[in-house]
Amino acid sequence: MEIEFLGTGAGSPGKFRNVTATALKLLPEINEVWLFDCGEATQHQILRTTIRPRKITKIFITHLHGDHIFGLPGFLSSRSFQNGEVPTPLTIYGPAGLENFVRTSLRVSNTKLGYRLKFVELGSEGQIFENDRFKVSFKKLDHRIDCVGYRIEEKDYPGELQVDKLRAQNVPAGPIYGRLKAGETVALPDGRQIRGVDFIGTPKRGRVVTILGDTRVTPNIVKLAQNADVLVHESTYGKDDAKLAHAYYHSTCLQAAEAARSAGVKHLLLTHISARYVGPMVKALQHDAQTVFKNTKVVKDFDVISVPFQAK
Amino acid sequence: MEIEFLGTGAGSPGKFRNVTATALKLLPEINEVWLFDCGEATQHQILRTTIRPRKITKIFITHLHGDHIFGLPGFLSSRSFQNGEVPTPLTIYGPAGLENFVRTSLRVSNTKLGYRLKFVELGSEGQIFENDRFKVSFKKLDHRIDCVGYRIEEKDYPGELQVDKLRAQNVPAGPIYGRLKAGETVALPDGRQIRGVDFIGTPKRGRVVTILGDTRVTPNIVKLAQNADVLVHESTYGKDDAKLAHAYYHSTCLQAAEAARSAGVKHLLLTHISARYVGPMVKALQHDAQTVFKNTKVVKDFDVISVPFQAK
Ligand SMILES: [Zn+2]
Ligand SMILES: [Zn+2]
Repeated sequence: MEIEFLGTGAGSPGKFRNVTATALKLLPEINEVWLFDCGEATQHQILRTTIRPRKITKIFITHLHGDHIFGLPGFLSSRSFQNGEVPTPLTIYGPAGLENFVRTSLRVSNTKLGYRLKFVELGSEGQIFENDRFKVSFKKLDHRIDCVGYRIEEKDYPGELQVDKLRAQNVPAGPIYGRLKAGETVALPDGRQIRGVDFIGTPKRGRVVTILGDTRVTPNIVKLAQNADVLVHESTYGKDDAKLAHAYYHSTCLQAAEAARSAGVKHLLLTHISARYVGPMVKALQHDAQTVFKNTKVVKDFDVISVPFQAK
Repeated sequence: MEIEFLGTGAGSPGKFRNVTATALKLLPEINEVWLFDCGEATQHQILRTTIRPRKITKIFITHLHGDHIFGLPGFLSSRSFQNGEVPTPLTIYGPAGLENFVRTSLRVSNTKLGYRLKFVELGSEGQIFENDRFKVSFKKLDHRIDCVGYRIEEKDYPGELQVDKLRAQNVPAGPIYGRLKAGETVALPDGRQIRGVDFIGTPKRGRVVTILGDTRVTPNIVKLAQNADVLVHESTYGKDDAKLAHAYYHSTCLQAAEAARSAGVKHLLLTHISARYVGPMVKALQHDAQTVFKNTKVVKDFDVISVPFQAK
């Protein structure tokens, strides 16, 4: 599990940061990539990475501001034209209005997609998706228009069957290994009773990633980020601009750090950085946030951050 | 008058060519820039040039395929946010459906532009614009969907009043210079009759630029390009792919060169190059076209071509 930042700027594209898009790479886990927001030229950014568009099976949109959605029509069109690859179906989650924008763009441009496209327009909060590996839920944030944050929870990994230990005790391999893994107690031909639970390692806790849209300080941030391994939070403004942040429905680096501390997250990644912050000013944003929450990083375009498992 | 190529690729953005956009820079003439087509990330390309978005006062769209229009919503939005500059009104010309796409994109994304935006949806052919400096007309081409080509004609420059020659003949400066420039005959106090026409230089012929959308071979190309100083023509395919070109409603480099020769243009610029042509293959496209029309150049992103006046 890795997070690759495809655009880390705010509002308009700049020379150094493109508008917002964040890829959650779940390749070892489920051989898929999930995209969060899709600002203009996200497909251009993807061209500079190893991400294959057809691996992107779900797109989660936080809100409908242009810097978060204007890359959708182009990305969806180009995804049809991957040499010799049949693109998989794609589902897009986001606020009401999204489907109208995308369908109008595709219809006016006479674009026929070579795959099935499905929209799920979101209500006010809830769970949007669950399978045996992941669960995704969302809550409203506080932005000028409807905007949500997403919480992605990986299911816990059951403990592995300790095959070496079984062999060391001369338990013969075969179908009984499956029964032991399922936790059963099994009688061996030699009369021994073997309890599965004695040969199953400790389960590994699944990881939690929280990816927010643009937002002011609001209690739902801490709820979405509770004990997350990684919180991706906007930081449009620096520590002295709390008034501007409030007026424009955004956050400062300190507000993001305070949310990370309150929620007890492990890592805070700051993105959606205004173009006014360049060079040493970016370091200052990071440093200021670290005075409140030490494990903070201001990300830049093409940063790849791996999401480690927690030690028990 | 210069043409700056902001995107010279076909279909999808590639690593070396962005999707289509062509800027006609009329800065010395009228302090404006006109944009022809606006594929995704045209605003990103503009960031790498000296073009200021507020100088772009007119956008001419050839057709509604995504690689020619998906950059419009982002460009229009960002044009509102030029530091301390009040953006001028903007007019967009193009086929029916364009306004629906742009207005839907702006409405869904809750974008308020800081300037007046006007649409002119085009009929089948005709003149779309004329003032004392320029005239723009269009005709239908042959593409899968409605597609046009544009002919931009600069008005002739009247001859300059030859002030040095008047001074050499001791004609005193003053209001009579204006009358002479207007072609009048003026009586001097010393009794001489001075004819304005004798002191006016040769007029300079205005330049003609023809910029086409995607197209198969069709008679309107030669009409649009008749005696043009520069013809910008698509060349999606190489000389051996006339069948593919026909099937996909595009042109080969040879077909473009033949049109240039028939129309008697001065320079042919080939753009809309398929991503399959890289490195020496691009040179081959150019070389093949030159066997038919010598003055041919395959352009690349960020090429700036100046449009010279014709020697009389
Ligand atoms: Zn934003
Ligand atoms: Zn095209």
